[in-house]
Amino acid sequence: MRIRDYHIKIGTLSPGRNNTISDVEGVKVGHCTISQGDIQTGVTAVIPHSGNLFKEKVVGAIHTINGFGKTTGSIQLEELGTIETPIILTNTFAVGVGIQGVIDYTLNHNLDIGRTTGTVNSIVCECNDMLINDIRKDSLSKNHVLEAIESATKDFNQGSLGAGTGMVSFGLKGGIGSSSRTITIHNEIYTLGVLVLSNFGRLEHLTIGGKVVGPLIKELLKEKQLGGEREQGSIIILVATDAPLSERQVKRVLKRTTVGLSRTGSHIGNGSGDIAIGFTTANKVKHEDSNTVIYTNQIIQDYLLDPIFQAAAEATEEAILDSMLAANTTTARNGQKIYSLREFMNTLM
Amino acid sequence: MRIRDYHIKIGTLSPGRNNTISDVEGVKVGHCTISQGDIQTGVTAVIPHSGNLFKEKVVGAIHTINGFGKTTGSIQLEELGTIETPIILTNTFAVGVGIQGVIDYTLNHNLDIGRTTGTVNSIVCECNDMLINDIRKDSLSKNHVLEAIESATKDFNQGSLGAGTGMVSFGLKGGIGSSSRTITIHNEIYTLGVLVLSNFGRLEHLTIGGKVVGPLIKELLKEKQLGGEREQGSIIILVATDAPLSERQVKRVLKRTTVGLSRTGSHIGNGSGDIAIGFTTANKVKHEDSNTVIYTNQIIQDYLLDPIFQAAAEATEEAILDSMLAANTTTARNGQKIYSLREFMNTLM
Amino acid sequence: MRIRDYHIKIGTLSPGRNNTISDVEGVKVGHCTISQGDIQTGVTAVIPHSGNLFKEKVVGAIHTINGFGKTTGSIQLEELGTIETPIILTNTFAVGVGIQGVIDYTLNHNLDIGRTTGTVNSIVCECNDMLINDIRKDSLSKNHVLEAIESATKDFNQGSLGAGTGMVSFGLKGGIGSSSRTITIHNEIYTLGVLVLSNFGRLEHLTIGGKVVGPLIKELLKEKQLGGEREQGSIIILVATDAPLSERQVKRVLKRTTVGLSRTGSHIGNGSGDIAIGFTTANKVKHEDSNTVIYTNQIIQDYLLDPIFQAAAEATEEAILDSMLAANTTTARNGQKIYSLREFMNTLM
Amino acid sequence: MRIRDYHIKIGTLSPGRNNTISDVEGVKVGHCTISQGDIQTGVTAVIPHSGNLFKEKVVGAIHTINGFGKTTGSIQLEELGTIETPIILTNTFAVGVGIQGVIDYTLNHNLDIGRTTGTVNSIVCECNDMLINDIRKDSLSKNHVLEAIESATKDFNQGSLGAGTGMVSFGLKGGIGSSSRTITIHNEIYTLGVLVLSNFGRLEHLTIGGKVVGPLIKELLKEKQLGGEREQGSIIILVATDAPLSERQVKRVLKRTTVGLSRTGSHIGNGSGDIAIGFTTANKVKHEDSNTVIYTNQIIQDYLLDPIFQAAAEATEEAILDSMLAANTTTARNGQKIYSLREFMNTLM
Repeated sequence: MRIRDYHIKIGTLSPGRNNTISDVEGVKVGHCTISQGDIQTGVTAVIPHSGNLFKEKVVGAIHTINGFGKTTGSIQLEELGTIETPIILTNTFAVGVGIQGVIDYTLNHNLDIGRTTGTVNSIVCECNDMLINDIRKDSLSKNHVLEAIESATKDFNQGSLGAGTGMVSFGLKGGIGSSSRTITIHNEIYTLGVLVLSNFGRLEHLTIGGKVVGPLIKELLKEKQLGGEREQGSIIILVATDAPLSERQVKRVLKRTTVGLSRTGSHIGNGSGDIAIGFTTANKVKHEDSNTVIYTNQIIQDYLLDPIFQAAAEATEEAILDSMLAANTTTARNGQKIYSLREFMNTLM
Repeated sequence: MRIRDYHIKIGTLSPGRNNTISDVEGVKVGHCTISQGDIQTGVTAVIPHSGNLFKEKVVGAIHTINGFGKTTGSIQLEELGTIETPIILTNTFAVGVGIQGVIDYTLNHNLDIGRTTGTVNSIVCECNDMLINDIRKDSLSKNHVLEAIESATKDFNQGSLGAGTGMVSFGLKGGIGSSSRTITIHNEIYTLGVLVLSNFGRLEHLTIGGKVVGPLIKELLKEKQLGGEREQGSIIILVATDAPLSERQVKRVLKRTTVGLSRTGSHIGNGSGDIAIGFTTANKVKHEDSNTVIYTNQIIQDYLLDPIFQAAAEATEEAILDSMLAANTTTARNGQKIYSLREFMNTLM
Repeated sequence: MRIRDYHIKIGTLSPGRNNTISDVEGVKVGHCTISQGDIQTGVTAVIPHSGNLFKEKVVGAIHTINGFGKTTGSIQLEELGTIETPIILTNTFAVGVGIQGVIDYTLNHNLDIGRTTGTVNSIVCECNDMLINDIRKDSLSKNHVLEAIESATKDFNQGSLGAGTGMVSFGLKGGIGSSSRTITIHNEIYTLGVLVLSNFGRLEHLTIGGKVVGPLIKELLKEKQLGGEREQGSIIILVATDAPLSERQVKRVLKRTTVGLSRTGSHIGNGSGDIAIGFTTANKVKHEDSNTVIYTNQIIQDYLLDPIFQAAAEATEEAILDSMLAANTTTARNGQKIYSLREFMNTLM
Repeated sequence: MRIRDYHIKIGTLSPGRNNTISDVEGVKVGHCTISQGDIQTGVTAVIPHSGNLFKEKVVGAIHTINGFGKTTGSIQLEELGTIETPIILTNTFAVGVGIQGVIDYTLNHNLDIGRTTGTVNSIVCECNDMLINDIRKDSLSKNHVLEAIESATKDFNQGSLGAGTGMVSFGLKGGIGSSSRTITIHNEIYTLGVLVLSNFGRLEHLTIGGKVVGPLIKELLKEKQLGGEREQGSIIILVATDAPLSERQVKRVLKRTTVGLSRTGSHIGNGSGDIAIGFTTANKVKHEDSNTVIYTNQIIQDYLLDPIFQAAAEATEEAILDSMLAANTTTARNGQKIYSLREFMNTLM
């Protein structure tokens, strides 16, 4: 079930074919899930294109909405404006493992690294799944990361799997969600897709399509939801597009994900590491290639960006709601139930 | 009329006594309005405290939501984290005049500047009022700026006056709006106030209390609203608080104004210069004072900031709506009517 | 006299034909000087190209080395990565006048601004000339700005003129200086030029070609130099190039001006507003042009930028020294002599 | 041997007792070195104070000089302005291992993490030691990180050990170097210390005390030095002080490390990840402590910071030179000798 199945439309733009990030040509998503007792965690990998990412980087950017987070790779991404690896999502304490997996993967495909050419900038993002997963147990290894990368596909599942396995949003079950929009600018059709790892928000603020539904759900709940008084957790928002943007413009697009995030009820809590990372497949940069001393970027005029901004806002809002609808009711480590939003939708709508 | 008069509550926190920025002790607001034919513009000044601002600066910050704007004073505010002058709002082409007015005012009160001590960092913010005001005419002078500063008071009016005279929001009349919230943290009561100069948004996106009302108003309108297809204009958001914050934390608070802005329907358009500037009156820094070589800042623990973040989001959303409700229907330079939101409220609600 | 006339070579790269910023094709510089009693100030204008700058913007960037300064236009330059006006240098309290002059100039050449299209982002930079000039007197008007713009030429003078009239560097006379370098990358020759407005530094730190000469000059001086114990003042560093760079890369180049600045002896004092602004003439962006919905930027691979970085460092160091050598001995408002560096060179070298 | 043993003084301020970063009370440094065949790498740990770092964080900041680097922990450090773990230096591909070691160490000392409180922000910095070390071999584990942390001491060695084992600077042997300065401000004595991991620079640019010595060494060298035409590698610069600074001010201090770096001959090459991280031990922030809802920061007036800025510049320059003098001649993986700077000093001076 997705939010559109409840006849709720987020915004006014049309979604792409599958209404996911992989509507952007070439983008794939893979999961690796571990679910054993109080080990409830995993890895999700987003692959920008199917070629050699290190040799042919995509133009990208990062925007920190709130920096209580441990995402790696931000410094080089800011400096060079390119992404050269799969983007990994996982739990907070597995960022080290995420880096090792990305390096392994990239070294295997590029025998020149560490010999005739330099290093790898791993982009690894995280949320803290400690309510459901025993995060103190060192349960992920780089093989899980490789598995997520290798299993990437255009048709992927959403909800409580991969990095989303142990996530909690608005006191309900969070996880992986995705959505997309198509935009027409001067007769050209572009696609923008979003994938989120949702693990943020307080139940009382949850808002669906402009309606604050959190307090109603709170009443429906017999037991107190997890998450307590503070907005904790985090959200990772990945944005892909095939629109011809510069890295400066990708960053501008990323800033509009806050619009979608805000409309789900978040006030961007202090403890929430809210990070947006994005890329365009329309502009690629070759790795130290002596045949292309000077390359050209295709760049859409800034004054035409508004529909793309709107698409980022809408797809983010919808991806968050879909992440919660796709996730299944589960039990936290302390025995409390973490319900799926699905269980309340019929009463709410 | 304010939004609360329509029994619409924005958020859950309580407003301060007057529900304006001057609920923060010491903050004053002054206007100077020019309204003569196609000259429809003015100046609004916000005074952080009633002492000598240059000698006793307030801790402050700036956050650029979207940088298509000409606000001055940002570089030094970022570097030093202090505000040392009144904050001036005016039209885009009067920024130079705004600077001259602030320098005049500050030189008059500080005979040592340019002699034994250095310079003045003027903070002047702007929106483009060209739809209503003939902005190509150089109609403001520094005396208008001084008049706005000198007339500052705790009880000030909102709507189509001062810098708000010629502004347009969501195709309706925009202008000056203000709102506030009180927050209790560990038994201490703090106040946060917001003042906006609203001049942004497309009618079809206008959202009140979660409800997208823009399309309904569009139908009610006989003639096409101004503003066209693109979200242009800008919004300036000023935030004042008496909570003990560092400049880093003021900036964090400012980032939450985007939440309120988003909930009014904005996607933060390309052409909109959306700038937030804020300060706390709880921490002051003396100008090159040899008696206070080392000063102390009172700083609230970051993990307690969530209510302040929420207050910034709520007060911003409400101030925007109030700016539109307080503004009066007027006529644009091209003869079209720019309606007040008030004229539609009974039908909408 | 320039530093090369003393057989001192800064760095290893070759200067352009005139060893000034106008070695970059199309770049022009104009001055307007006011010198009457204790009014010793002026305006310098740098014109990126000879076409309509507003209609055909250059790709540019800004980098704040130390933000104790009042430069305007930074917010939009950061957001959009373009420069659309002449760049104005003047004294700190004339920034407002600078903005008005730029707006006047731009409105005169673009009748659509304020009618069918938006606003103008004026870039005005400043240093504080209060030691020589009575800065409290409001002695500049927008006509001086227009005069500087209109008089711009490829062959311009350096030293104590224009904005440099009243500037002091390292306790000696500062002002306008310029230098350039040519670089060959894969058989293509590029030029990078720098123009500085120097008004920073303490005499004891002055370093020429790696040799700390300040203390020697201090001994030679009968009277104590102005400027006191603190490094105050500021430096504005403008960089132009014809190398094909993106705005991200221009910013990277600007960061290397700190290298040249450091080598003249500065520790980048607290009170020094050290701002670098740059552009490339190789990439232009048309103003809201419906014929170029998508434009292309030519971008050199980042791994080839090192010679351009080195050029920025070398030309900055040399431009600072040349600004001091070109400036003439004068008298401060308090009657002290402010010597030209020229007067000590024979003894020093 | 250190640079002062050659009667070369860098700057004018006095070093602290040991002329190292641990002259700042409480700061310790530990190394773990691996040296077996073509495995030549290691870990260095800098400990800000001897208490529980997670429970009592130090006020800190990060400044990216050039972002071609993979340092982690930057996002949260920027957001919250605190450092809560040892700072780890290691090789580029061991950043993941560095994170795991820091998490292990912190979890062991804080049983509440992952239970009643949140997460750990690991700060791990890196340089690429591939010329000497076979970096493709995954030779470091988290135990090496723990060993470096546990072995931290006030009296530590410099040169080719710990993270410095395989580093190359200016085509000569680089590694760990450290220096310090004492400053008196209004009768209070403060100490600032720097520790660098040097792995940057081209031989021809090497500058000692203002004298460009690189070309002379190049002549003395029989075989071509490593490093090729491009400035690659990176430098990590850690700064500690006991001066009462805010996080904003720590960042200002960090920006002055570029001054010292520039004076050793660097132009901050494209491929060099030059990152500065610093902290003050004078301001500590307790972890979510309900007894200190509001804490106070002691902050020195900004106008008094110049000596601290100068100290950062001088200590950085000297630490780089000392890192090279302390390092031993070794052999690269390709068989070339990488000489110690020591071997040329008698000829040069």
